[in-house]
Amino acid sequence: MRIDLNSDLGESLGAWTMGDDAAMLSIVSSANVACGFHAGDAAGILQTLRAAAARGVAVGAHVAYPDLAGFGRRNMDVASADLQADVIYQIGALQGLAKVAGTRVRYVKPHGALYNTIAHDRPQAGDVIAAIRAIDPTLVLVALAGAPLVNWAREAGLTVVSEAFADRAYTPEGTLVSRREKGAVLHDAQAVAARMLRLAREGVVEAIDGSSVRVQADSICVHGDSPGAVAMAREVRAVLEQAGVAVQAFAA
Amino acid sequence: MRIDLNSDLGESLGAWTMGDDAAMLSIVSSANVACGFHAGDAAGILQTLRAAAARGVAVGAHVAYPDLAGFGRRNMDVASADLQADVIYQIGALQGLAKVAGTRVRYVKPHGALYNTIAHDRPQAGDVIAAIRAIDPTLVLVALAGAPLVNWAREAGLTVVSEAFADRAYTPEGTLVSRREKGAVLHDAQAVAARMLRLAREGVVEAIDGSSVRVQADSICVHGDSPGAVAMAREVRAVLEQAGVAVQAFAA
Amino acid sequence: MRIDLNSDLGESLGAWTMGDDAAMLSIVSSANVACGFHAGDAAGILQTLRAAAARGVAVGAHVAYPDLAGFGRRNMDVASADLQADVIYQIGALQGLAKVAGTRVRYVKPHGALYNTIAHDRPQAGDVIAAIRAIDPTLVLVALAGAPLVNWAREAGLTVVSEAFADRAYTPEGTLVSRREKGAVLHDAQAVAARMLRLAREGVVEAIDGSSVRVQADSICVHGDSPGAVAMAREVRAVLEQAGVAVQAFAA
Amino acid sequence: MRIDLNSDLGESLGAWTMGDDAAMLSIVSSANVACGFHAGDAAGILQTLRAAAARGVAVGAHVAYPDLAGFGRRNMDVASADLQADVIYQIGALQGLAKVAGTRVRYVKPHGALYNTIAHDRPQAGDVIAAIRAIDPTLVLVALAGAPLVNWAREAGLTVVSEAFADRAYTPEGTLVSRREKGAVLHDAQAVAARMLRLAREGVVEAIDGSSVRVQADSICVHGDSPGAVAMAREVRAVLEQAGVAVQAFAA
Repeated sequence: MRIDLNSDLGESLGAWTMGDDAAMLSIVSSANVACGFHAGDAAGILQTLRAAAARGVAVGAHVAYPDLAGFGRRNMDVASADLQADVIYQIGALQGLAKVAGTRVRYVKPHGALYNTIAHDRPQAGDVIAAIRAIDPTLVLVALAGAPLVNWAREAGLTVVSEAFADRAYTPEGTLVSRREKGAVLHDAQAVAARMLRLAREGVVEAIDGSSVRVQADSICVHGDSPGAVAMAREVRAVLEQAGVAVQAFAA
Repeated sequence: MRIDLNSDLGESLGAWTMGDDAAMLSIVSSANVACGFHAGDAAGILQTLRAAAARGVAVGAHVAYPDLAGFGRRNMDVASADLQADVIYQIGALQGLAKVAGTRVRYVKPHGALYNTIAHDRPQAGDVIAAIRAIDPTLVLVALAGAPLVNWAREAGLTVVSEAFADRAYTPEGTLVSRREKGAVLHDAQAVAARMLRLAREGVVEAIDGSSVRVQADSICVHGDSPGAVAMAREVRAVLEQAGVAVQAFAA
Repeated sequence: MRIDLNSDLGESLGAWTMGDDAAMLSIVSSANVACGFHAGDAAGILQTLRAAAARGVAVGAHVAYPDLAGFGRRNMDVASADLQADVIYQIGALQGLAKVAGTRVRYVKPHGALYNTIAHDRPQAGDVIAAIRAIDPTLVLVALAGAPLVNWAREAGLTVVSEAFADRAYTPEGTLVSRREKGAVLHDAQAVAARMLRLAREGVVEAIDGSSVRVQADSICVHGDSPGAVAMAREVRAVLEQAGVAVQAFAA
Repeated sequence: MRIDLNSDLGESLGAWTMGDDAAMLSIVSSANVACGFHAGDAAGILQTLRAAAARGVAVGAHVAYPDLAGFGRRNMDVASADLQADVIYQIGALQGLAKVAGTRVRYVKPHGALYNTIAHDRPQAGDVIAAIRAIDPTLVLVALAGAPLVNWAREAGLTVVSEAFADRAYTPEGTLVSRREKGAVLHDAQAVAARMLRLAREGVVEAIDGSSVRVQADSICVHGDSPGAVAMAREVRAVLEQAGVAVQAFAA
């Protein structure tokens, strides 16, 4: 039995540091690496890619809207031709840096507002799918478990990996509880780790109302943007491994 | 007998148009395509790449300093790690877009201040050379004829194509007359075309003092940023072809 | 009888030119000057401000979302604190440049997607209103005639000037026909000028269905982004003046 | 007896945090606030300005080259018209935000590479001086003690405040030891505080060779970009005050 752990990395920008990439690369099996549109400068991205290569961590393109000031978290009504070309540009840039770092881009995981939007918005989802197919149809798309995007992308011929979020509460319908709701974000590392173990073993998480809900996920997203987040990610990995669940990239 | 004609393309940005890419793609054999750092948005770049592919025009990466406001024309004291990674990032991004457009990047021609600086500045030249070698050592470097960069790059194992500038006056030493000097820029399309024909045939141009100077060039840079520039480029091509000099990309 | 003519100016960016500011400043009475977020670099803005000052044209801040690549035409879900501060920042920057140019900022006209959004979106409208009130409550807000924004801003204590669009068709309800509809944009300069004369005299325009609709406007927006647009603007002014309608800034 | 303490603040950018502005505002008497060109987003700048106003800390414009990726630390060969307008734009933007925050901009302290360049480069110094004079000739310029800029600005009619750097070694000639030299940066908070006390009292610092050198400074620059830096700044203030030297803004 095995599952993937992924995290957002390479998000420093020039003089500004974000997260502890070195620590996270000792925990996760897949690194979603910023491509310069919401975060990441080329030299910092290259450094993270080299560290990922050295650790044997799989690399994905964390593509985003062009919005450094908003960290890619603001919805943007980007025209179809722009969105497609922007995604191709970002993947290409990361492919170039990855090659130099001795690794290659295996998957694409959209970031922030783009991630949330394409989970259910057909036109923008179509643009991201078209961009991936155009540059390399063997790239895997990482998508929110249970979102319409999963089927849209599969119907278009892409391989899709569904992911769960370690520190988020789920509704009885298997969707994420909105961050605006109380209890949406979980803070107890041990409880989170136990939930993820159950997810890996049974494909089930306990919903916010106490019921059990099926969540089909091949990857678990963990965060590394605070010391507490790193500790939680480490706990998730430890509990999984102690129970005999291998932490392993979906992209071989 | 043959020679290459190259021009800077893909330099529009969102709502701002620059140059007449369609016209220039019917004249030149090589297109130096902006990579987003001094000019070019991804969708516009992709459009130019598709047009270049349709025309059979060879594509090069017109890499630059990160300076949209200054159009890459301002010297910048970029740290070595940044410059190398920035160049790789730009080439990678263009490679991704080029693949989607059905073509591929054959060469690298630095733009503006970066072009001028690395012609003679050893450290920055070394960074650009290292970046090209790291991402793809078969990429050709286009450099100013007679500049120290030509040998530096060849010694590092790169293939270098030297270029002359159609509309620029030369010193008796074979270097460009500074734009600050009177007579540095030539405006008579027929005279320019005749000069370039002599260059292609004899490897010689008439210097600003009337002497003849040897300029070894495999490519001629023409501009397309005004209707007059397009007309001059067209005249250069016509005169070359009428004299039996084939206009053909150096990168097959 | 008098009316104001306004136009978007200062929208060049570094090496990229947009519009013919000099020509438009001989036609309009109010200049909506870009503030660097959707267009405009500081030196170019300053040049336009100096020309406006020399011509006696009133100056307004053409504030926008931070989106050069999209020219401020893309909707962005900007957080309240960011939108307020971004608007203040832009107005302040233009005030500084205007002072140096020997003039001052009299009004604010949001640009593009921000203009369209706040016409009817209460939260973002509230942020723009709050920003204007905070930096200078005597600044006039230019808003779409008939939009909810007009009353929201007046209720908050701002002076509002409503504007009509010279080259746009109107619905029988007095709103703009969407650009996606056929006939939304008018191209006949004489017809446009005649419409604007009627608007100035009677407060009425002919709607797209042939009916007459009341449009209360103290200013008319004309464009200058093409030679045809400049010619149309010139015709509007000429027809107004020949009929005895003075073209005069609302902001004295 | 009194002296000013200044520090660089407002340098966070969207999701990226830099420094501990709250802590530093309890230590310094003058805040050099980023203006968005090398660091700072409008909302974060406004927050820092409000905190400075609440603390009674004087505010200055920390103007810079347009270079977020390089944090304004890279030399840029900016044309005169651009540099002047860029400086005016930044001061204006900060004036607007400062007014909303209930304070106002009292001085200008150029940042990073611009600071170092204008200390001795006549053309760029002239541009910065011209920009300040154009927008508000009563703004004080903070400059490196002993640099040619001090006199150039005074000759142009500006009020200049010279500053020393708390954590930097000085040459026997009273200039800063280059950061590339060993011993250029001092790390012992108590020793630094003692040095600054001597500077405040006697106008003398001990140079790197052990000699005493006269440094005329009305302000001391302290850093806040790490917990150690904050502690050092606090120590400097404490030692000054214990010795009866009032820490007080030069700009009343």
